[in-house]
Amino acid sequence: MPILVMKFGGTSVANIDRIRRAAKRVGVEVAKGYDVIVIVSAMSGKTNELVGWVNEISPFHDAREHDAVVSSGENVTAGLMALTLQEMDVPARSWQGWQVPLRTNSAHSAARIEEIPTTNITAKFREGMRVAVIAGFQGISSEGRITTLGRGGSDTSAVAFAAAFGAERCDIYTDVDGVYTTDPRISPRARKLDRIAFEEMLELASLGAKVLQTRSVELAMRYNVKLRVLSSFEEPSDTAGTLVCAEEEIMESKVVSGIAYSRDEAKMTLISVADRPGIAAAIFGPLSEAGVNVDMIIQNIAEEGRTDMTFSCPTDQVKRAEKALRDAKEAGQINYHDLIADTDVAKVSAVGIGMRSQSGVAARMFKTLSDEGINIKVIATSEIKISVLIDRKYMELAVQALHDAFELDKLA
Amino acid sequence: MPILVMKFGGTSVANIDRIRRAAKRVGVEVAKGYDVIVIVSAMSGKTNELVGWVNEISPFHDAREHDAVVSSGENVTAGLMALTLQEMDVPARSWQGWQVPLRTNSAHSAARIEEIPTTNITAKFREGMRVAVIAGFQGISSEGRITTLGRGGSDTSAVAFAAAFGAERCDIYTDVDGVYTTDPRISPRARKLDRIAFEEMLELASLGAKVLQTRSVELAMRYNVKLRVLSSFEEPSDTAGTLVCAEEEIMESKVVSGIAYSRDEAKMTLISVADRPGIAAAIFGPLSEAGVNVDMIIQNIAEEGRTDMTFSCPTDQVKRAEKALRDAKEAGQINYHDLIADTDVAKVSAVGIGMRSQSGVAARMFKTLSDEGINIKVIATSEIKISVLIDRKYMELAVQALHDAFELDKLA
Repeated sequence: MPILVMKFGGTSVANIDRIRRAAKRVGVEVAKGYDVIVIVSAMSGKTNELVGWVNEISPFHDAREHDAVVSSGENVTAGLMALTLQEMDVPARSWQGWQVPLRTNSAHSAARIEEIPTTNITAKFREGMRVAVIAGFQGISSEGRITTLGRGGSDTSAVAFAAAFGAERCDIYTDVDGVYTTDPRISPRARKLDRIAFEEMLELASLGAKVLQTRSVELAMRYNVKLRVLSSFEEPSDTAGTLVCAEEEIMESKVVSGIAYSRDEAKMTLISVADRPGIAAAIFGPLSEAGVNVDMIIQNIAEEGRTDMTFSCPTDQVKRAEKALRDAKEAGQINYHDLIADTDVAKVSAVGIGMRSQSGVAARMFKTLSDEGINIKVIATSEIKISVLIDRKYMELAVQALHDAFELDKLA
Repeated sequence: MPILVMKFGGTSVANIDRIRRAAKRVGVEVAKGYDVIVIVSAMSGKTNELVGWVNEISPFHDAREHDAVVSSGENVTAGLMALTLQEMDVPARSWQGWQVPLRTNSAHSAARIEEIPTTNITAKFREGMRVAVIAGFQGISSEGRITTLGRGGSDTSAVAFAAAFGAERCDIYTDVDGVYTTDPRISPRARKLDRIAFEEMLELASLGAKVLQTRSVELAMRYNVKLRVLSSFEEPSDTAGTLVCAEEEIMESKVVSGIAYSRDEAKMTLISVADRPGIAAAIFGPLSEAGVNVDMIIQNIAEEGRTDMTFSCPTDQVKRAEKALRDAKEAGQINYHDLIADTDVAKVSAVGIGMRSQSGVAARMFKTLSDEGINIKVIATSEIKISVLIDRKYMELAVQALHDAFELDKLA
């Protein structure tokens, strides 16, 4: 029988009533003829409670013990989901990570999946079991210790199971009904996308549209797993949610698929840096060592052997960046007059695989912002994305204007 | 190094502060030179929450899934305890049941321990680890499913580890400071016992003194594990608590060690049963098949071929007993005029290994009750116990009078 993977996030299994509602959806797919692999998160709030206790004991904890504690929330939901399905006369059983066993490396709290053997579960499907309920987010290391895959790791569990079992699709049930052209709280004209390409989803996910864990999208792209994001709070239908899939499966796509934004970006400028070969390495080497995630970089034209260098990084890494640059200056590795941090900025990005084949996107973006009187501070581009840093007070305006300019409120 | 087992119940690990306090006690024993095996229960309330969810889904649930869910509370405490010990610079790590692996049979929710391999943990002790923290109450079946040992099963885990590792002692930390001559809420003159024999503890445990799980005492007796019951809320000392040990280790014991009681006992009388050989089997066979736990039995002297038969059973099994006896009557297996259930009774027992060698205990017990005007309805005796069924309203009075009569308020 064809296999379907269904993943339910924390809010979709927050209490017994919601678990029952989720189980009913599983029952519908079983009735259609699927053997179903269900991946569950912990009931919402549970993981935070466990992480809170661990941090209360020690901020610098043994990650192996952290993982042993924090993985327990998913075990509870897996058992409860199996019981609920059985109560509905759907043959089901639960598996904890070590029972599968979902093998990972030993990078506790951020483990990478190495192998998911399928024989054990496949044999149970052959015996008549219809649903395998798997505790998400967790695995087992070669030392026999429990590992976890990092926050949001159940999405990655789900995609990995879909890849290992050759599932027809991987449905991610969450509390939003799909991926939007932009945040509906900012633009009331935001529209749900029926389909989006893996590459676009990756850019949107890492730009702040927190629907799917980035790693799960990477994994889905690599193994070509069809991912569907949909709400567990809406009536089921075949066209519900957003399908994240390969570019080829999207018949006609718009040049721009979505407008993303991030408030957590700061702009830092080194004033009057002595310009010489290797200066970029001298600046960004120490930042990288200090764990600062530099995103955009811009270098002014040098005048009289000196230049200004501007970059962006997450707001909460500004202090760390300042220290790293001061230390490098004192060590004589770099030389600059001043360092200015501007935390009053925001990043707005237009994302779309159509950009690859169509020019003029950047021009239209810049003109739109200019027409609204919004000054662009930094620009960065990739093959399918254009990002700009602007004053934070203009962020909503910019998102709305760009959403209109690229006609995202209209169907393709 | 000598090994000590320390078990902490739910109230002793109810929150992070209490886990810290428990960890300090462990640290004291490590400093004395012990390698310590710590067995932990779930934080108090957690197991009830999990059981509540399981029962909300289905009262007739798959015990395998029940066990997978319910065992998670102990896993959380084990990890938190290991982290707390590490924070105190005590080398420690946690083990879940399947990691040991503590092997059990497949009687889910009431599994029996079959084997505890020691090589894995012993090797870690050799490498310098000082504390192995074990999630209590749980094991793994030969099918690789998680099992649990029944309510209070962490006591049994603790004793089993003490036996497997040849521990010097097994300390059970709980919210009472030891075993008392009777319930201090009933007799203010109740006194903590310094020592009690396994056999006495077994009678007291099964008679309603809920300090230790009965199975754990049986296991301790079989493997001669010295058990100490003590409070985690009092200052530690070498004479704290009560030592449950072999009879030989109690120098001079009183004739009676304790007075136990139970309110949950009902008296049932079959009036005018046709007396014939095999009548007892005809009555108690159906009761046994119906799952009624008959405790005391009394048969009146027969007159004209008929007799009255009285027995006691737990109050919540009265309905079941009535049905079984009515069915047997209708099937023509037994014949009686009437069946009278009296749920307004209580059982009071005097327990002591000294009874074996000293006579007159029963006489003194009956005279004491008679002097107080308390009528005895049923009597049952064993080698080290005399139990009587009386009107429930006299229960407190009987316990106090017997406690005084056997001078339990005075030191041996």
